[in-house]
Amino acid sequence: MEAPCCVPTHGEDSLLAIEAEALAARFKALSDPNRLRILSIVSSSPTAETCVCDLSEPLNLGQPTVSHHLKIMVEAGLLNREKRGVWAYYSLVPGALDSLAATLIPKA
Amino acid sequence: MEAPCCVPTHGEDSLLAIEAEALAARFKALSDPNRLRILSIVSSSPTAETCVCDLSEPLNLGQPTVSHHLKIMVEAGLLNREKRGVWAYYSLVPGALDSLAATLIPKA
Repeated sequence: MEAPCCVPTHGEDSLLAIEAEALAARFKALSDPNRLRILSIVSSSPTAETCVCDLSEPLNLGQPTVSHHLKIMVEAGLLNREKRGVWAYYSLVPGALDSLAATLIPKA
Repeated sequence: MEAPCCVPTHGEDSLLAIEAEALAARFKALSDPNRLRILSIVSSSPTAETCVCDLSEPLNLGQPTVSHHLKIMVEAGLLNREKRGVWAYYSLVPGALDSLAATLIPKA
């Protein structure tokens, strides 16, 4: 028999407020099309990392804008940044996207 | 031999602008902690659907605010809405979260 309307049906496994804050911040980092395209380029790079200097042209964006987007994704824990010489190189934080994806899979 | 800096390394499989727009809109719907908590409650409901009337209390939010968040997730294609009598009932759109999760898994 189903519970009548207005009896709370949420279980103990529902997301806590503090967990939701942290997750929402990561999804916010993904809520911009240019940031998704940057992630796509970085993740499909044959060298597993991408120079900031290689992103402006395919995205048709100025380098300050690209750097702004990259900073948001580094702060969200999605990208690593390594400075070598005059350029910064970006790579995926291992497991970060997978663990974020796992939070989206409804429990059976 | 690795390509020197400033040779674009993005492949043909990088995300197109139009795909990125659509995906970003879905991630934007997930970029709010209250919306993530709503999704969590709906997905853990034993009846596979949740009455709008059951969300205010666990979230400690007024019903207009809950309805606002629900509308965003319906528009983003994450939740289905079914009106029965005076209440609306929400359920996960089958496969929507899984397919969004799949976009986050870096290609091997």
